[in-house]
Amino acid sequence: MRIHVHSPPRDLLDVITSAVWRDAVSDDDRHVVSFGTTPAEWQAAAPEAEALLCVTSGLRELLPIVAPRLRVIGFTSAGLERLAPFDWVPDGVTLLNNSGTHSAKAAEYVLMALLMFVNRMPALIVAQQERRWLSVSGTGLAGKRLTIVGLGAIGGAAAALAARFGMIVTGVRRRPAPHPDCMRVVGLDDLDSVLPDSDHVLVALPSTPDTDGLFDRRRLGLLPATAGIINVGRGAAIDEDALCDLLDDGRLGGAILDVFNEEPVPPDHRLWHTPNLVMTPHMSADDPATYNHNTVVIFRDNLAALEAGQSPPNRFDPAVGSRG
Amino acid sequence: MRIHVHSPPRDLLDVITSAVWRDAVSDDDRHVVSFGTTPAEWQAAAPEAEALLCVTSGLRELLPIVAPRLRVIGFTSAGLERLAPFDWVPDGVTLLNNSGTHSAKAAEYVLMALLMFVNRMPALIVAQQERRWLSVSGTGLAGKRLTIVGLGAIGGAAAALAARFGMIVTGVRRRPAPHPDCMRVVGLDDLDSVLPDSDHVLVALPSTPDTDGLFDRRRLGLLPATAGIINVGRGAAIDEDALCDLLDDGRLGGAILDVFNEEPVPPDHRLWHTPNLVMTPHMSADDPATYNHNTVVIFRDNLAALEAGQSPPNRFDPAVGSRG
Repeated sequence: MRIHVHSPPRDLLDVITSAVWRDAVSDDDRHVVSFGTTPAEWQAAAPEAEALLCVTSGLRELLPIVAPRLRVIGFTSAGLERLAPFDWVPDGVTLLNNSGTHSAKAAEYVLMALLMFVNRMPALIVAQQERRWLSVSGTGLAGKRLTIVGLGAIGGAAAALAARFGMIVTGVRRRPAPHPDCMRVVGLDDLDSVLPDSDHVLVALPSTPDTDGLFDRRRLGLLPATAGIINVGRGAAIDEDALCDLLDDGRLGGAILDVFNEEPVPPDHRLWHTPNLVMTPHMSADDPATYNHNTVVIFRDNLAALEAGQSPPNRFDPAVGSRG
Repeated sequence: MRIHVHSPPRDLLDVITSAVWRDAVSDDDRHVVSFGTTPAEWQAAAPEAEALLCVTSGLRELLPIVAPRLRVIGFTSAGLERLAPFDWVPDGVTLLNNSGTHSAKAAEYVLMALLMFVNRMPALIVAQQERRWLSVSGTGLAGKRLTIVGLGAIGGAAAALAARFGMIVTGVRRRPAPHPDCMRVVGLDDLDSVLPDSDHVLVALPSTPDTDGLFDRRRLGLLPATAGIINVGRGAAIDEDALCDLLDDGRLGGAILDVFNEEPVPPDHRLWHTPNLVMTPHMSADDPATYNHNTVVIFRDNLAALEAGQSPPNRFDPAVGSRG
């Protein structure tokens, strides 16, 4: 295949150079690959290109896509909601997301967050700011009930780690098929019935019409007052104002959030100083040491599936807003 | 054996009732066990008692120990430095500490602290207080070099968890015998040579003349400026003032401390507000759900070793200040 890689230099994390490519696919020389950092380089490659690997933030500058032989475009993000509406996709072109690149790093972040909850870190961080020796005890993870909403690559990897530590994992997803690391899996329709029985909840959802606002004020109110909630998917899944109200009132144990409705979070937002809320800057899933390498490997594996006439595992369905 | 259990009601964590005992040793009815919460109950049991299991904070009120048949006293703490000097120990009586009760819980705390370091949480907690979106990336644990100083029950359990996540673990202990979860083990004499090659350091030491002040200003200065240091042993191992100076000057990445030279830490102590320093109130190793159960099981196992003429694994050597 003739492949072009578009990797504009302004992106700090996604930098896919020829060196990264060679290192990742050293065993694979069937492809002719060009690398560019500017729209002009793409224009030069477009007449022959069959595949494009594009840093997600670099797509807009390439539009409209005019490439008669193009069959597939791969992106460097798992969530592609910022590319909507998808009216720019040429007929017959398959989109691929980058689901899977993030899962090992993100699962470790989730494990950290769960350990912070059972060790009472949200409350202890507040106590330290107040110079207060807060005599509390923690517990281990074993036997605690974790509900994971969204069983994609990240939710699934987190389930595996949590199960390894003896947590009792309930998965929630659109189609409630069994998952090897979940004691049970229920459909999204049954979310309300499992929330009250959760010690902690992990939200690992893409942003779609079905998932935006899923954790509204009513649903957040179904959680036990000691529960912790983690969000590593997209901020739109949670009503932040309702979450802050619950934390302010002591009706929720804690929250560890890596994603937000507006990023960066504005300095005057109440999130920053809501008690028992720990914030990180949308970095849970990104490991610079492995990110670009994983991106290339996943893209290469998807091209192989496509060439073999199979459905590529990362095929992105614009109508659903996630992998189809 | 005739056993007396002294468990004064004022201690919130160590509460060893007859129900706890029965639940832990249901398969063992060879012993005659009495339970007391007052010195008078001990005085009544003392003439016949061969073994005493004593909540550590409850020993002083029983002194002097006059019990002609007594062979062994077990305590509910791993570190017994607060019982020194040991001139109150009757001739021929073996002391047992509670090493092992804490290891599973403490190892999870250490894993949390390591994940917090690689996810840059100490700096992110400071940034949140300042309402600042700090764009940083984290990494995974795999490949990071962890030095564990003290390979007792807690240090060993932490080594096993860290190795499971791909960390490269160096152990440091008095006698540098190999350990299954350490890539290498060196003696305390070689500590200075391994500190500069450590991404992170775990201190899991008892308080003894050899270990108090071990991490003085000079040794702390041997750590890389990005390193994190965790202390779950005893506060006396670290010069807190030197540690705070290094953190203030940005010459150390972070510290997560569960133990301190003075506990509770006084409200006006600089520790509370030193940047990139996270404090917890001496709770890393205590899980109320398992603590007393584990205490009884360990005490029972040590009595069995003693009755079999073997050296009990938790024999405490007052001359060394830890397990002999």
